[in-house]
Amino acid sequence: MATDPRFFTTAEPQDLASIAAAAGLALPPGADAGAQFTGVGSLAGAAPTEVSFLDNRRYRDALRATRAGLVLVPPAFASDVPAGSLGLVAPQAYLGFIRIARLFHPEPAPQPGIHPSAVVAPDAVVGEGTEIGPCAVIGAAARIGARCIIGPHVVIGPGVEIGDDCRLHPHCSVSHAVLGRGVVLHPGARIGQEGFGFVPTPEGRFETAPQLGRVILGEAVEVGANSCIDRGGQEDTVIGPGTRLDNLVQVGHNVRTGRGCILVAQSGISGSTVLGDYVAVAAQAGLTGHLDIGSKARIGAQAGVINDVPPGADVLGSPAWPIRETWRAIAALKRLAAGKDADGTAGRAGAAKTE
Amino acid sequence: MATDPRFFTTAEPQDLASIAAAAGLALPPGADAGAQFTGVGSLAGAAPTEVSFLDNRRYRDALRATRAGLVLVPPAFASDVPAGSLGLVAPQAYLGFIRIARLFHPEPAPQPGIHPSAVVAPDAVVGEGTEIGPCAVIGAAARIGARCIIGPHVVIGPGVEIGDDCRLHPHCSVSHAVLGRGVVLHPGARIGQEGFGFVPTPEGRFETAPQLGRVILGEAVEVGANSCIDRGGQEDTVIGPGTRLDNLVQVGHNVRTGRGCILVAQSGISGSTVLGDYVAVAAQAGLTGHLDIGSKARIGAQAGVINDVPPGADVLGSPAWPIRETWRAIAALKRLAAGKDADGTAGRAGAAKTE
Amino acid sequence: MATDPRFFTTAEPQDLASIAAAAGLALPPGADAGAQFTGVGSLAGAAPTEVSFLDNRRYRDALRATRAGLVLVPPAFASDVPAGSLGLVAPQAYLGFIRIARLFHPEPAPQPGIHPSAVVAPDAVVGEGTEIGPCAVIGAAARIGARCIIGPHVVIGPGVEIGDDCRLHPHCSVSHAVLGRGVVLHPGARIGQEGFGFVPTPEGRFETAPQLGRVILGEAVEVGANSCIDRGGQEDTVIGPGTRLDNLVQVGHNVRTGRGCILVAQSGISGSTVLGDYVAVAAQAGLTGHLDIGSKARIGAQAGVINDVPPGADVLGSPAWPIRETWRAIAALKRLAAGKDADGTAGRAGAAKTE
Repeated sequence: MATDPRFFTTAEPQDLASIAAAAGLALPPGADAGAQFTGVGSLAGAAPTEVSFLDNRRYRDALRATRAGLVLVPPAFASDVPAGSLGLVAPQAYLGFIRIARLFHPEPAPQPGIHPSAVVAPDAVVGEGTEIGPCAVIGAAARIGARCIIGPHVVIGPGVEIGDDCRLHPHCSVSHAVLGRGVVLHPGARIGQEGFGFVPTPEGRFETAPQLGRVILGEAVEVGANSCIDRGGQEDTVIGPGTRLDNLVQVGHNVRTGRGCILVAQSGISGSTVLGDYVAVAAQAGLTGHLDIGSKARIGAQAGVINDVPPGADVLGSPAWPIRETWRAIAALKRLAAGKDADGTAGRAGAAKTE
Repeated sequence: MATDPRFFTTAEPQDLASIAAAAGLALPPGADAGAQFTGVGSLAGAAPTEVSFLDNRRYRDALRATRAGLVLVPPAFASDVPAGSLGLVAPQAYLGFIRIARLFHPEPAPQPGIHPSAVVAPDAVVGEGTEIGPCAVIGAAARIGARCIIGPHVVIGPGVEIGDDCRLHPHCSVSHAVLGRGVVLHPGARIGQEGFGFVPTPEGRFETAPQLGRVILGEAVEVGANSCIDRGGQEDTVIGPGTRLDNLVQVGHNVRTGRGCILVAQSGISGSTVLGDYVAVAAQAGLTGHLDIGSKARIGAQAGVINDVPPGADVLGSPAWPIRETWRAIAALKRLAAGKDADGTAGRAGAAKTE
Repeated sequence: MATDPRFFTTAEPQDLASIAAAAGLALPPGADAGAQFTGVGSLAGAAPTEVSFLDNRRYRDALRATRAGLVLVPPAFASDVPAGSLGLVAPQAYLGFIRIARLFHPEPAPQPGIHPSAVVAPDAVVGEGTEIGPCAVIGAAARIGARCIIGPHVVIGPGVEIGDDCRLHPHCSVSHAVLGRGVVLHPGARIGQEGFGFVPTPEGRFETAPQLGRVILGEAVEVGANSCIDRGGQEDTVIGPGTRLDNLVQVGHNVRTGRGCILVAQSGISGSTVLGDYVAVAAQAGLTGHLDIGSKARIGAQAGVINDVPPGADVLGSPAWPIRETWRAIAALKRLAAGKDADGTAGRAGAAKTE
């Protein structure tokens, strides 16, 4: 993991004490708290001055052969750390590792100030330490918090409120929205545009239902590149704290999610559907409107959900069923296609060899 | 529905006569045409000075308990309007309601003028009363109609023609296109880029087929956020009047739709497929290329359409079948997976209890 | 194919020698090398001064009736060219035709120079003959090759390297990336943003795994409108030379493709999956992460691939199976739903007429 210096800054070498502290781990007895390390790497690629980790039994041999000077390992693998390496026992080795990686490669800090090409309304409020990039547009009476990065070409509509420590990457647009602290919008994310609501007239035209709600993004919500969250029609669209959307995700008007939900790439949630906490929606899954999805439910990839899902349930398929039923149906179909009866014995179809 | 004043303007109180006129409804005999109302709300939430509606039998109890001063109801529910409310009989209560909501919350009007940061080609024509927002770019010889809103960061290519009363929201791009009157493009919509056409050479490279057609958007077409409509290869790509695309929809080159079609979020139409009038394509459905989809056909969510669809037909599934067949197949598969024969009796598989 | 002169330039008339040379074809003996042609058209629509082609037996009658002055035809149809037309024998008639179309309608050349509204970092390097459009933003130390077109509102991040002859259409964003020669990015393409990687903490928050890799786009890669390619987490995301992505495609972090792959609209490849050369992924298909897809494999539309795919294999369905198995399963399901046994005879279900 030799990072490209054109794109990533690397901090000065760090001593073992700082590294262990970053990961929230205790130093083993007798360890040299002042030992210096220069970066992070994979088990196979790390140098003796670098830090690595193991979190999967599959890589045990790589651990035994690693040249990394420091390795984070779960307790069960402590004895596999080779002689030349120092092992640091970590119940969540990967979590510890990413915290150390962040120590060496910190997120770029905001460069406070407003680029001369930006267009900021006179009555907009920009917090202390915030960076407003080239060609960004900040509408009337918008309020941007402290220490934000508003990237090049971001467009923030009138009245929008953005919390502290937010990062809005290039080409995002935000209107009719209130963003909590630490929200991240990736390039091209669309927040707060009009939802898809209209009524056919007797003459066969469609008449738009005024979309009079907002989008509320909770603290630390992240929205992927080119994803879309429409504002509410009569209520607000609400994304709970910590929820993360991947790229190209669609969230319709009046959707509400709890905290810590995950919406993977190209999934879509139709209008007025409500998700509890920690719901996971896998890639390309779709949920129809007005559903209730219980907390910790898991929606499989490409699933088509047309009914409520109870808390903790796993569903899969289109239409989505409980995951065991779907796998049983797939297995039954496979047997049927192979010319066997549902119990796996060769049936008449097999005998007939029609294909 | 207390709208956030940071995002929505609210008109002055309106009298009953204006409200009924907006909805195209007759006042009941003896009603006070001058009675004042201040806004709209739900049956449960509306105040005595607000207007509400019922369009679903499910909410009959809410109607009986409403405090709304004025309620639009279909004829069958007129007798359920409580004593403190005035009932206004409306065959299409929701349509009437959204017209009243629009009366209280009108669309923002264009603020005529060209923002100093916009880049408008000297030979571009901008119609009277049109607003050109910050950093918008208007190419050579483009023609923009009257009373349009061209939002911040919209890019309009050379020669593009845009009708009167169009609204192009931030970050749209339009090239090689002719837009009718009243077209709405939501943020990040992509209109007129090159279609996906190329030919493999004997050496294994791909060579682009020149894409020499245009995109024609009929009157009142709406295109959702981050949706894409490619220009034609040899013919034009044509979207019929009144057709509405939701967010993240893909329309390939040479597609033609009739009037009043609906393409819901994340659906996709492959090249050269033709849709009649009032075709509805539900979310995440996909249509392969060179198909004929008859007028008023309905394509279900996540359907995969690989054959022509006759007018008025409902299809579902991947591959898509007539909707009854698909539901029958799903039911049969469910029985099979449950270890039953297709007629619902326990068969050998069930007896064998293989799982 | 009368092109709209507002959008397409048409070259001067071309003589037969130049036309044949553009298509790499030999003139027939005795042909008038100086004969002039003015453009291209369909068999049905071309005028006597225009060039057309046939590449499908279906259009044989149109060939026999064409008024086109020059027609490219495969050898088998040479005798069908009518008396008034000159036939030019071409093994790949459509490839020859698009090269002739390009002769008449060349790609717009870059207009060298930097638009005054662009924001170019002082230490960025812009190659000779390159056009930088209005409001484009070029970050610190970025390097742009020669003869590129960087369209309006393109944002190129610090350190990005772009080869010669690239075309970046409006509203693209590129960061943490190295682009080879001749890369084309269509409007709104997102290259190099952070991948979707994070770890749950014991407290139920998600902590972002630093995404320290890059995006490498090989020579002549094309990326469709609003498509997204995330940068690698620990390795690079790599798109092989000549690979083409259609619109709204998602490519996760650490994905690697070989050369000449095709990813059709709205398809998605999850993190760390590896594609060989000339893999075709049809529209709306999805591949889960960490898979190996062999060269020349074909993934059908809406397929859901959850296992490795061998080289040259065709798969279809969700979950994806070899295409013959999937079609057999679909046929079996259809028979079952129709109340027939798997061999096509009417079974008990049919007799019972339960529906």
